[in-house]
Amino acid sequence: MNNDNISYIAKIVADEVSKSRVPTSITLDIAKKLIAKVEDKAKQMGVNAVVAVADAHARPVAIECMNNSYIASYDVALNKAYTVVALKMSTMALKPLSQPGASLYGIQFTNEGKIVIFGGGDPLIYNSQIIGGLGVSGGTEEQDTALSAYGAQILKDIIDK
Amino acid sequence: MNNDNISYIAKIVADEVSKSRVPTSITLDIAKKLIAKVEDKAKQMGVNAVVAVADAHARPVAIECMNNSYIASYDVALNKAYTVVALKMSTMALKPLSQPGASLYGIQFTNEGKIVIFGGGDPLIYNSQIIGGLGVSGGTEEQDTALSAYGAQILKDIIDK
Amino acid sequence: MNNDNISYIAKIVADEVSKSRVPTSITLDIAKKLIAKVEDKAKQMGVNAVVAVADAHARPVAIECMNNSYIASYDVALNKAYTVVALKMSTMALKPLSQPGASLYGIQFTNEGKIVIFGGGDPLIYNSQIIGGLGVSGGTEEQDTALSAYGAQILKDIIDK
Amino acid sequence: MNNDNISYIAKIVADEVSKSRVPTSITLDIAKKLIAKVEDKAKQMGVNAVVAVADAHARPVAIECMNNSYIASYDVALNKAYTVVALKMSTMALKPLSQPGASLYGIQFTNEGKIVIFGGGDPLIYNSQIIGGLGVSGGTEEQDTALSAYGAQILKDIIDK
Repeated sequence: MNNDNISYIAKIVADEVSKSRVPTSITLDIAKKLIAKVEDKAKQMGVNAVVAVADAHARPVAIECMNNSYIASYDVALNKAYTVVALKMSTMALKPLSQPGASLYGIQFTNEGKIVIFGGGDPLIYNSQIIGGLGVSGGTEEQDTALSAYGAQILKDIIDK
Repeated sequence: MNNDNISYIAKIVADEVSKSRVPTSITLDIAKKLIAKVEDKAKQMGVNAVVAVADAHARPVAIECMNNSYIASYDVALNKAYTVVALKMSTMALKPLSQPGASLYGIQFTNEGKIVIFGGGDPLIYNSQIIGGLGVSGGTEEQDTALSAYGAQILKDIIDK
Repeated sequence: MNNDNISYIAKIVADEVSKSRVPTSITLDIAKKLIAKVEDKAKQMGVNAVVAVADAHARPVAIECMNNSYIASYDVALNKAYTVVALKMSTMALKPLSQPGASLYGIQFTNEGKIVIFGGGDPLIYNSQIIGGLGVSGGTEEQDTALSAYGAQILKDIIDK
Repeated sequence: MNNDNISYIAKIVADEVSKSRVPTSITLDIAKKLIAKVEDKAKQMGVNAVVAVADAHARPVAIECMNNSYIASYDVALNKAYTVVALKMSTMALKPLSQPGASLYGIQFTNEGKIVIFGGGDPLIYNSQIIGGLGVSGGTEEQDTALSAYGAQILKDIIDK
């Protein structure tokens, strides 16, 4: 067996070990870092947001309510985080499908009122896998949508750092 | 009493005996066979479905969640099976009736959120009688509708075999 | 590098691959086999049971209601399966803790009524990990307890076969 | 006006200014610091806890679920934080009052199931005023009680620092 063979085997071992370390569901540590970044962005935008993170099984991991955020936003943010994992799509993608007359109109009345159908929720995808969900509520729909999209986009940096 | 009379009486007796053997409500055995067939079809279509069967009294008999099906689909499939027995029509037939402005608009807010108003639920009819309900959730509305229609259609074969 | 080294490396690779294959959450296939076995046992005992299996995240995987089982048992079995994963203990272990005066009295009023505090629910443990939950309802508490314990005990055989 | 008069007036003004700075309801910043401290303590005790903080109006401010905490603990911790503000007493103080036969028995069935009657919840008191609530769930009742008591005790240090 020459050095090339050894290198090859070593690479396989390393890959396997590495794969086993890839997070398949959001941890509290990642959730807190992500929420902090989204809140920083919200502050810059002048939004008092509630930011919620769910794990890969749509269970809550962490929720923070910025000072002076809407009381109603707690429920909305939490349920956006649920929705995006439970239906594997952003709440913005669900929006047109759930309007009166559209194919999924009525889904918003299922799941004990936990399906939210307006912008501000994004699946958290890492390694091509949904590992959690992010829900933001507090600004206009446009602002909440921008904030959850921002969070989804920076996830990789947070995990890989 | 001549032979004709005897034949006539015999026929009535036989009919009654036969009727008493006809299932008037889905059994677990039939439900499991039906679910298995619908899941086979779903696999062919590339859909990870939740498939639920209710009995003639709108009570659940069996539910199966295919691997990687939507978390939200459990509630949706179960309640489609409820809806079609509780209202004696497919969820697709209910869809136009429950749109804003239509005659039954609002029914989706009754029954503790258990009325589903988009495709994927069909009554299970045997011998011209509703003996149960089938609810499928996991694909597009078109796919779910095709799957529950398929299930409703093969019911007779499953029972008579 | 001699053959011993190669064997050693190969073993590590194999172990890593193998670890990644161990089920960490109940699949539908395992759930169905487990339910079938528990129902066979219930039949032998003359019990018409509802048998429910939840995954490692307390989400339902499959539920079956044996013919003539109690209508109330659906809810009870489903929630037993939830309870044992959500609290990482059998419902029988939770029973003494949740009696009036005991340390956890009151837990049965939390979690939207989904905590069941009498026998018939067991965590499904494989490789020292809770990979799901089993809930059985339909007989006396003693019978339900025996049935869920039986299911928990045969899990390994079902998976390894 | 002599110097003594001036000093006297200055003191009154300073006191009033200072009072207006005293938090009358938990802010997100304080909540996060408090949760971090309680989690550190939980780690030392080997407990995976869910820690929730409510504000002076019994509304959630922040919730964190430590990795591998009980799924059921989310609801329990959140509602302990609610209970202690809503009833102005620790859940441990409520415990004897809500046992069968005791004066408040039944309170656990009110408020949509949000009243928790076992240890792990403490009001957050500052300047003799309830400014929020702390709920901890994840260990034994003894451990949860110790953790919420610890959190209540260190609140002053966190705010004054």
